[in-house]
Amino acid sequence: MNKYKANIKITLREGILDVQGKTVEHALHSIGFESMSAVRIGKFVTLYIQAESESTAMNQIENACKQIIANPIIEDYSIEITKAE
Amino acid sequence: MNKYKANIKITLREGILDVQGKTVEHALHSIGFESMSAVRIGKFVTLYIQAESESTAMNQIENACKQIIANPIIEDYSIEITKAE
Repeated sequence: MNKYKANIKITLREGILDVQGKTVEHALHSIGFESMSAVRIGKFVTLYIQAESESTAMNQIENACKQIIANPIIEDYSIEITKAE
Repeated sequence: MNKYKANIKITLREGILDVQGKTVEHALHSIGFESMSAVRIGKFVTLYIQAESESTAMNQIENACKQIIANPIIEDYSIEITKAE
């Protein structure tokens, strides 16, 4: 068994209104950062996994993303895996 | 003026209890993903910025992170900038 670290970026799909992002964007503009736009806020999940191989790890994490970590109806996700230790 | 895209990863500092991460970890274990551990949930922010140069853009985003986007007391952040268009 090997140990892997996964970095998972979860972003709202294009076209889905990002209320939290809009709020932060307004706040930024109100304190002088008018040059910033299109603020969107997603999630950045890290976890460790024990698996036989990198491809097994990737497969399990894909399934976990679909079932719990992300909401595939409104979110996209991308997974990066590196060997830990 | 140039347009840049920034990807900002915000993670809870080590040692800070991640309640959301623990909850997701328990949920993962309960549906059969026992091989996953140390789940931590941060934020992934994307935004666009108009600036004279990449270093000016980086500076402004650093300031925005310190003031609004992140909470430097409990969170770390890393910023990646690429030229847009």
